[in-house]
Formats: sequence, structure tokens, C-alpha cells
Amino acid sequence: MERPRHQGMAKNTYMRWRLPLVCLLWEVAMIVLFGVFVRFSPEADAHWEEEKQELNLTSDMENDFYFRYPSFQDVHVMIFVGFGFLMTFLKRYGFGAVGFNFLLAAFGIQWALLMQGWFHSFKNGKILIGVENLINADFCVGSVCIAFGAILGKTSPIQLLVMTLFQVTLFSVNEYILLNLLHVKDAGGSMTIHTFGAYFGLTVTRILYRPNLEQSKDKQGSVYHSDLFAMIGTLYLWMYWPSFNSAISEHGDAQHRSAINTYCSLAACVLTTMAFSSMLQKKGKLDMVHIQNATLAGGVAVGTSAEMMLTPYGSLIVGSISGIVSTVGYVYFTPFLESRLHIQDTCGIHNLHAMPGLIGGIVGAITAAAATEDVYGKEGFIKAFDFTGAYQTRTPSVQGGFQAAGIVVSLLMAFAGGAIVGGILKLPVWGDAAAENCFEDEVYWEVPEDEESDVYHMHNPDKPASP
Amino acid sequence: MERPRHQGMAKNTYMRWRLPLVCLLWEVAMIVLFGVFVRFSPEADAHWEEEKQELNLTSDMENDFYFRYPSFQDVHVMIFVGFGFLMTFLKRYGFGAVGFNFLLAAFGIQWALLMQGWFHSFKNGKILIGVENLINADFCVGSVCIAFGAILGKTSPIQLLVMTLFQVTLFSVNEYILLNLLHVKDAGGSMTIHTFGAYFGLTVTRILYRPNLEQSKDKQGSVYHSDLFAMIGTLYLWMYWPSFNSAISEHGDAQHRSAINTYCSLAACVLTTMAFSSMLQKKGKLDMVHIQNATLAGGVAVGTSAEMMLTPYGSLIVGSISGIVSTVGYVYFTPFLESRLHIQDTCGIHNLHAMPGLIGGIVGAITAAAATEDVYGKEGFIKAFDFTGAYQTRTPSVQGGFQAAGIVVSLLMAFAGGAIVGGILKLPVWGDAAAENCFEDEVYWEVPEDEESDVYHMHNPDKPASP
Amino acid sequence: MERPRHQGMAKNTYMRWRLPLVCLLWEVAMIVLFGVFVRFSPEADAHWEEEKQELNLTSDMENDFYFRYPSFQDVHVMIFVGFGFLMTFLKRYGFGAVGFNFLLAAFGIQWALLMQGWFHSFKNGKILIGVENLINADFCVGSVCIAFGAILGKTSPIQLLVMTLFQVTLFSVNEYILLNLLHVKDAGGSMTIHTFGAYFGLTVTRILYRPNLEQSKDKQGSVYHSDLFAMIGTLYLWMYWPSFNSAISEHGDAQHRSAINTYCSLAACVLTTMAFSSMLQKKGKLDMVHIQNATLAGGVAVGTSAEMMLTPYGSLIVGSISGIVSTVGYVYFTPFLESRLHIQDTCGIHNLHAMPGLIGGIVGAITAAAATEDVYGKEGFIKAFDFTGAYQTRTPSVQGGFQAAGIVVSLLMAFAGGAIVGGILKLPVWGDAAAENCFEDEVYWEVPEDEESDVYHMHNPDKPASP
Repeated sequence: MERPRHQGMAKNTYMRWRLPLVCLLWEVAMIVLFGVFVRFSPEADAHWEEEKQELNLTSDMENDFYFRYPSFQDVHVMIFVGFGFLMTFLKRYGFGAVGFNFLLAAFGIQWALLMQGWFHSFKNGKILIGVENLINADFCVGSVCIAFGAILGKTSPIQLLVMTLFQVTLFSVNEYILLNLLHVKDAGGSMTIHTFGAYFGLTVTRILYRPNLEQSKDKQGSVYHSDLFAMIGTLYLWMYWPSFNSAISEHGDAQHRSAINTYCSLAACVLTTMAFSSMLQKKGKLDMVHIQNATLAGGVAVGTSAEMMLTPYGSLIVGSISGIVSTVGYVYFTPFLESRLHIQDTCGIHNLHAMPGLIGGIVGAITAAAATEDVYGKEGFIKAFDFTGAYQTRTPSVQGGFQAAGIVVSLLMAFAGGAIVGGILKLPVWGDAAAENCFEDEVYWEVPEDEESDVYHMHNPDKPASP
Repeated sequence: MERPRHQGMAKNTYMRWRLPLVCLLWEVAMIVLFGVFVRFSPEADAHWEEEKQELNLTSDMENDFYFRYPSFQDVHVMIFVGFGFLMTFLKRYGFGAVGFNFLLAAFGIQWALLMQGWFHSFKNGKILIGVENLINADFCVGSVCIAFGAILGKTSPIQLLVMTLFQVTLFSVNEYILLNLLHVKDAGGSMTIHTFGAYFGLTVTRILYRPNLEQSKDKQGSVYHSDLFAMIGTLYLWMYWPSFNSAISEHGDAQHRSAINTYCSLAACVLTTMAFSSMLQKKGKLDMVHIQNATLAGGVAVGTSAEMMLTPYGSLIVGSISGIVSTVGYVYFTPFLESRLHIQDTCGIHNLHAMPGLIGGIVGAITAAAATEDVYGKEGFIKAFDFTGAYQTRTPSVQGGFQAAGIVVSLLMAFAGGAIVGGILKLPVWGDAAAENCFEDEVYWEVPEDEESDVYHMHNPDKPASP
Repeated sequence: MERPRHQGMAKNTYMRWRLPLVCLLWEVAMIVLFGVFVRFSPEADAHWEEEKQELNLTSDMENDFYFRYPSFQDVHVMIFVGFGFLMTFLKRYGFGAVGFNFLLAAFGIQWALLMQGWFHSFKNGKILIGVENLINADFCVGSVCIAFGAILGKTSPIQLLVMTLFQVTLFSVNEYILLNLLHVKDAGGSMTIHTFGAYFGLTVTRILYRPNLEQSKDKQGSVYHSDLFAMIGTLYLWMYWPSFNSAISEHGDAQHRSAINTYCSLAACVLTTMAFSSMLQKKGKLDMVHIQNATLAGGVAVGTSAEMMLTPYGSLIVGSISGIVSTVGYVYFTPFLESRLHIQDTCGIHNLHAMPGLIGGIVGAITAAAATEDVYGKEGFIKAFDFTGAYQTRTPSVQGGFQAAGIVVSLLMAFAGGAIVGGILKLPVWGDAAAENCFEDEVYWEVPEDEESDVYHMHNPDKPASP
């Protein structure tokens, strides 16, 4: 009989021509645009030998590659393994979690190299890319991975690609407003990546609200092994977050400091998460959902301030608070958002990225406003906030105000952008599955028909036993 | 009926108020102590700009961050993914393995930053931390992860936190005695981390001896997939061990040499482990327990000597021997320790850390005693053993003697400390589970009630089928 | 009754004395040869202090360790976790995939240090090794891991060790011919690693053709979780491939450029792979086999040219094409190779390494032939192709010709070497399993006898239920 799958077909999840067409067209567009615009930065160009002499550099070590490449690789792991595996907790959506994350991120980084390139690395008609551009492209895509978390299991790969296209564009505009127009500091992206990405995703999932989602409720949970796969994602995000927050900070002390602050914040966050996970459970048992997610809130919450003189104990405080807020969010806010506001947030990105992102923005504003020449040193003060040129008269408290404005702008961009993109994704042409087939890999993937899988298919008893 | 769980309750494994209280109190204590004591090292402080000028440094590359950060991240992965996943081999204790390791390590690194800071980075009333402190904190916690391996599955999270508190303290004292009072070299921690950590853990598990542990025997084994998860831990430990042993060596040749020696030792260790794993089995088949563990002994066994002129062939010899010793240990010593000495060593840390750690200490003593100016060069000789100041007249053979003394001190600290801490952990207030519930995640974790899990619960046939 | 296992015994897969003997003898040989030949390079030797003064180096940062160690660790992860887990897709061969890969790679790197050392680092009767040698040894072993993919599940561990011994030897000879005699550039190893390794493996598997392999057909597929384990391998290969292709490039711009080109190529490859995976399926669903493998073809295909001025859009083009070729290969070529040419290619290395490797060689030849002083700069041009000494008059088009010759030599070496080694491996003394026991861990491994495993053993109904 196979009713569920027929209904899925009724919604036409057939991808055979649509998905290839979108992928190939966009890749061709990328090739053309890269051909017209993208070239190597001087440090990656074979002319570097001459560049070195001009700049009087005595060592190849001065090439930015050596300052940032190890952090780049860590960030790269966070985007593809970290986010990808974090979302494999669903019992029957592991292929979609890892695979679609892979697809959207691979497309997104190409488009981000262009979009961010036009805003930040455009010179004589060409975008000149180096390792820092690669990191920024990964960062930008990170915000899409975050939004993906809200709609995980409920969208087709084409919808994800469309969302990526728009979100990367909006991200780049928002980032340009914050970093260039408001002259805001946000090296770890509490505002640009997390606040923007999360509220964007939450708005999209609100617009795509599915009233009958309880039909696939049996698949919204985890199984024992899928929780362990998810922990791979969690741990790589947790371990490499110091690299994330320090990857594009200034050379020297700023990178060093960012890593230390983030390390401290994350360590504290684990303890408060464990405490509240146990405390908020009648039986006092720990919940893997919290351990997989809320332990990371500490990294989000120092995203803006990690490169500032937040100090290690400041980081512990921020990390502790964000672990609590995030865990409480999973227990109380997520059900509320779903039942009252019709926001179906599969991974709980409101708890892991949205609220900690806001905390991060606020902590950044306060830390900036509280900066003094005494704490930073005269030169360090100017360097830390880039108070040069047009900004050389800006005071810390004014900077704090602009930082706060950055939060507001990010929120507005996220809500407006999410609403528009959500509306586009609601069009009935993208091949998303019916409610009863959500969170199910079989809709878009060839799933191995093996003995083991029988156990999973209790909802589909008419299916013939596998050979 | 659910007898096992009722008995568990009889031992009161209810964590709801105890675990949160301990976590929160300790985190508050960390915040206060960090607030009073911890600040950034000059290389992570915004005053670095001025520091650079004072030190006449021409490049930000001279910041210690760039010498050590990549190694730090590798070590970080070893502690959280390496040790965490290595212990997921148990069929029903994957959450506890990864999750409790995460908890104790996150707490431990904070406390280690303080303890080691007071001993080694204390200046004008403040602990100044940089990337090397982060590495050392991870190292210190590594010794706790090792001890955790002996008691895996048999303790409550509170017991683990209490053990961490004491073990980090004792580790720091022992490390101070070795490195500062005895002026011993131990960059990869054969003595301070492995010998100390393992014998400490073995003493604790001896004191916590559970005579009825065979009641949970069905859960002490692995399943097919859990063995693959464990291999993730194994391989990350194996691959990144060269970073572990070189992370805090002197800049330049010492770091370079440590990595090479460790690489060689580990490669040899794999071959002898495979050989003996097959040889010691009547059927000649390979045993995943050996492959998961004994292949790492080569990293432990060059922990002290890797930064010395051990030479690549010396490393091959040490690695070969330690693989053999470790595999033989799993086959013959572990059963003996359990049946005769009542030492229940879940992960076999005696084979992976204790014996190879001793080998490492001895090899280090011999290598130091055999050092000559000819082999090291005049300046290299002084630099390698830090024969400056009060130690400028120390000879290699005397150094060898002190190295040997370091082993003895580490053993004594481990036995004495383990006995005291074991006694504390034996108090009936920490919420550990009854023997028949050991090695079972359900005691402390919300475990997903899914179809698949039915298969595992054959010991509990009265449990209603999952919804 | 257990017919299958009896037949396995009939082929005598008993390893107890043979495997230990081979492992131990070879390890002893390694120790002796290392003792006679291998010493530290000046940068890893304690004499470095004096070396620094001679070379007028002002900073320890100039030690090659800091230029290459992060890339080395990434490559190391690719070899052991990347290749190891990529091959765990088989439902009952996860131990063999990860474990035998571990064994052969650990042996191979030792032998490669010697073989490559004699050819490239031999000075005054000694092989002087540093971090670049470690990378090259990993590279060399990479080609063995590739060949392993073709014969996965069908060979005994002894056969793998024998193959490793010969393949490493032939690899080193081929590499010497290419790099030293033909003066060819191939930093990412499209020719030396991929083309050679893949065609070598394909030739071996052709010679070892098993006509009755369909007897173990039920085990040649994946299960849901094994596909997720394989994705760990895929993602680590994908993420770290920029490090692979840049690891041994010249310091500075060349390493920087290699990483960027590879990043771009791989991103494009994901999109075309997804497109063709869906397009070539009647139901339009994505196939994990393609996602796990063809997404990596972009890294292979820029292996030669990544360090050249391929440009980002050039990389996108190469990556796009190789993704298409590779996916088409899985759908059409693999069945053809098996049915018509009797080439049984378990992992489809023809699609992932052989064809993309050829593309890589050709792209490299074209890119070299098209090089101009204008594009590279005068000094950059000479440096990029090492047009110094005997080669200072070589023109780009001549270089292109030599590059093309490199492909041909690699192919010839692979076919000839593979035929000889395949013949040796066909001797009936190595303990390989009967056709019906292929792709089954139980032949060489102690497999946990747990509840879960029952599900897998439907082919063996007489086996008593586990306790």
C-alpha cells in the first residue's frame, strides 16, 4: 500500500531533473563569475617573490598563510564535520544531515567568496583571494548551516540551495554594514554569524510552519548510535571553537587572546550545562540533547568579545551564563516556541545560536564600552578597535553604542530576509516532502535495503522484507 | 519488576541535586579564583605591541601562539575525542564514556590552569596564562582521563569530579617536584602523565573493588559498531601523539625531533601489536581490544625521550617493545590483576599507560645518561637538558639518576594519592550504581527509547516495549 | 553445519604464525636498516643551534617544522582516518577496513622513509629525515591505501603487507624517475600517488580475479550506520585535501596557492557529483556511494597543477569535470570493468583515483605548457618550475611534454608492477579467504558475539544464539 510514500509522491519529491539542473546551472554561473572576477591575492600569487622584496619581507613566514592556515583548517572541520555530524542525531536523517550540509556548504563557500569578495577584497576590478577569504567564506556558510538546523528534515535539497543563495547574499550585506559602515568588531561572529543566522533560520521555519508535523514524530528522536555520531559533531565544534573565534583576529596577541578566552568560556559552559540538564529533569538524568548543544553556547557567546580584553574570568562568567540560558531554552523555550509561536526548530538553534548570539553581541558592546588605554596599552587600544583614520576620535562608549546597533541591524536583516526567503521557499515547486515523510532519508536518498533497516520501518509494515 | 533498576535506586543514583550543586559550586569557585589570580600572559595581552618593541621582536610570528597553537589543537582533540571515543567500546556506556570524559576534562582544565599556574606561571600575585598553559592544562587532565579508564562504568559523575579535583592537585605537586626540584625532563609526560595517572587510577579502582561485578558482565563487552566508534578515539590518539610529545618542547629542533621520534615509535608499535595479538590467540585472529589500545603504547613509551637524541631507530626499538609488552599485558596481566589483586581495570590502562609509562621513564633516564656533547653539539647539549644556572655542572649520568628518581616519586605519589582519593570515593554519598547496573548508561542518562534498544535489554524482559 | 567457514578453513586463513612472523621479521629489518641508515635532518638534530648560526637564521620559526607540520598532521589524518573510515562502508568489514589500513600504513611509512630516503635524502651514507620526509612517507603510503581500495575485503593481511612492500618500492622508483630524471612537478601526486596507485591496484585485482565473488554479494553492500562511518572518512579527506596538495610545495605563495586551488576544485566537485548522482538514477535519489567518493575527485584532479597558476576558476572547471567523470564512472564503468574486464574494484578506485588522476596529470601538463613569465613573474616563473641548473633553458612547452611523459611512465610502472605483484599475491600461501567469506571480518578478527550481530548472520542460520 505504502501510503506515506505515495503522499510524498503526491507532493512530488522527485528530484531527477530539478536538482541536477540547479546544481549545474549554478556551478556554471560560479565558473563564469570566478573567471571574470576572482584572482589570487598577492600572497598566493607567483609574483609574491617580487612582492616580498617590495615589502622588505625577509621570510616566507610573513605570508599570511602561516598565520591563519591552521585555524582555517579547524574552521573547515567545524563547518563540514562539526555542523554535519551534530545534526545526525535524528534516527533516520543521517544522510540528509551530513549530505545536505555538505551540498549547501560547498555551494555556499563559492558564492560567499564572490559576495564577500566584492565587498571586501575588490581591487582594480578583481577579487583577490587568500586564506583569509577562505575562512570568511566558511564563516558565512556557517550561518547557513545554523539556519539549516531549524529546518532540518523538512526541506528538499533545492530549497536548501535556494536558501543558501539568498542567505549568503544577505549575510554579506549585513556583514558589510556592520564591519564597514558601523565599524563594529565581531571577529567570532556572535552578531554576523550566530544572531543573524539563527533568527534568519527561525523566521524561515516559522513561515514554513507544518501543522501536521506530529505525523512524523516517531522519527524526530534519536537512537543510541545516532547520539554518538552527533557527539562527534559536538566535540569538533567545541574543540576547534578557539580557532573559530581567533581565525581572523589581528596577528599576534589578538589571535592568542581570542583562543584563550574561548577555551575558558567553553570549559565553564560544560559545567553549567551538565548542572542544569540534570536539575531540570525530574529523574535528574542528563539529556544528550543538552550535552550535544548547550555545551557549545559558550563559544557563541564570546564570539564578539574574545579578541578583546575580556579576561579569563570574564570568559568563565559568560560561558557559565550561556550554558544555563541554552539548557533552560531547550527545556522551556523550544516547546513554547513550537506550540505558541509555531516555530518548529528541529535542532534548537534558538538555544544554541540565537540567545547565545545575542548574549555575545551584548557582552561585546559592554566589553568595548569598558575598554581603557590602561588595560590595552596605548598602541594596543588603537589596534584592538582599529581607531585609525576616520575612526581615530571614536571613544569606547561610542564604540559600545555602535556594537549594540550592530545587534539590532543583524536582527532586522534576519527577520526581513528570513520572511522574504521563507516566502520564496513556500512556493510549491521545490519538492519538499509531506509532513509524514519528514525526517526520513528515503525521500531523497538511496537507503541501503538491509536486514537492520527492518527494525526502523515499523511505520511501514506493508513494505516487503528486504532480500 | 525491574529488579536491577530498583537495586540501583537502593544505592541512590539520583543525581538531581547533588550533581548540579557540585558543578555550580565549583564553577563559582573557578570564577572567583580566576578573578583573583588569572590574567593574560604578555604574549596574549593587548600590551604585546609594547612588549614586542621592548624585546626587539620584528615579527608577530615570534609570538609563542604560532609555535604551539597547532600542537595545542591536536592535544585538545586527543583529550576530548581521543580519550572520549576510545572508551566508547562498551556496548551500553557510550554516553558515559564520551559525556563524563567531557565533563571531567572541562572541569579539570580550569582547575589545572590554577594549580599549574601557581607553581609555574605565578608573577606578582597573578597567574599569567598563554597557549603553553592551555597545553599543560590539557596534559594534566589527560592523566585524569587515563585514571578514568580504570574505573569506567563503575562510578558516578560526582565521583569523577571529586577524583578530578584531587588528581589535578596531586598531578601539579608531582609535576612541580619532578620538573622544578629534580630538574627532570619529561616533555611528553611518560612519568608525570602516564605513570602517575595510570597507577593513581589503578590504586583507586583497587580501593573501589566490586566483588559482584560479574553481574554486569554481559555489558562489559563491545558490539560491532561500538568497536568502530572506539577506533575513532584510537586513531586520533595515534595520529596526534607526535603533537602531544612535541607540544611543549623547546622551539626549533626539539619540537621537530620529538615529532619524528614519536612518529617512528608509533609505527613500529602497530606491527608488534598486530603480531602478538594474532600470536596469543588460539585461532590466530586479531583482537580489537589490542588494536584499539596497545598500538598507542609506543607514544607513551617515548614520552620522556622523544625530545632527546633518541634517534629514529631507537624509537623503533622502544615502540616495538612497548607494543609487545602492552599486548601481552592485555592477554595475561589484566586477568591476573583482576582475579588475584582485585584490580578491575575496565580499559586496561595498566597495559596502555602504566607499563609503557614506566618504560618511557626508564628509556628517558638511559637516554639522558647516555647524552654526550658530541651527539648534541655543545650548545644543543646545554639547551636539551637545560644545564644552566644551578644545574650547569650536572652531568648526563647524574641527570639519568634524577630521571630515575622521577619515576619513583611519580609512583609513590600515585599510590599514596590513589589510596587517599580511593578512600574518599568509597564513602557511600556519591551516588555510584549497584554492581548489576555498572556499564549501563541508563543509570545517569536519558537513553532514547527506540526500537533498536530493545535488542540490548535482554536482561530486562519485563520492560514494556517502546511506544 | 557452518559450511562457509569450513570452506574458509579449507583455504586456510589461519594467521597465527604467518602474520606474526611477517610483522616481526619486517619490524626487525626496519630497526636494522634504520640503525644503519636513518638519522635526523639538521633541522631536527640537536646541532640545529650551530646550524642556525651558520645559516644566519634569526628565528626558530625558520625551521621547516613550522612551515609544514600543520599540513603534515592533516595528511596523517587523511591516511589513517580518511582512507580507513572511507572503506568502512561495507556492512561487515569495518574492522578490516580500518584495521588493515592501519597495519599496512604503519608498515609502509617505515619502508617509505627508507626507500624515499635513499633516493632523495641520502647524504654521506645516511638518510637525514625531517618533517618533509614524514609527509612524503605518508604520501607514498597513500598510494598503497588507494590500491587497497580495489582489493578490499578479498585479501589476507599478509597479502596486504607483501603488496605494501613491493608497492612502496615501485612508488619510490617511479617517483624518482618523474621528479629527478624527468624533472616533473607533481606536488599533490596526481601522477605519482593517484594514477600510479590506482592502476597498480586495478592490475592487482584483475590478476586476483575471483569468478565466484557473487557468493558473498550480500555482504558487498552497506548498512545505514556503516554509510555514516564512511562519511567520516570522506569528509576528512575532503576537508584536508588542501593540506595534501600544498604540504610539500615551496614555502610561501606556492603553499598558499595550492590550498586555494584545491579548496575551489573540491567545492565545485561536490555540486556536479550531486547533480549527476541524482540525474543518473531513475528515481532521482542521491546515492551515498557517489557522495562518499566522487566528491573527492576534485582534489585528485588538481594534484599536479594546484601549486601552479591554475587560478580559482580553472580549479572550478577541473573540479566540476572530475566530479562528473567520477560519478559517471560509478554508474557505468565499474559494472563494465567487472563484467567485461574482470576487474573487481571494491571501492571504485577507478572512478575516484584512476580517471581523476589522469585528468590531474593532463591538466598539469597543460598548465605547465601554458605558463608564461607574465603570469608568474620573472622570479616566480623560475621558482615555480625550478628552471635552474641543468634545467634553466627548459621552456614551458617542453616542461608540458615531460609532464605528459610522467603520466605514461606512471601508467607503465603501475601495469608492470601490478602484474608482477598480483602474480606473487596469487600464490596459494598467503591465507586469503574463499569467495563466500570475502567482505567478512570474522575470518581474521575476533568479532564481538553480541545480540545485535545475530541480525547480520542470516546466511549462517545454524550458528547458536549468542549467550
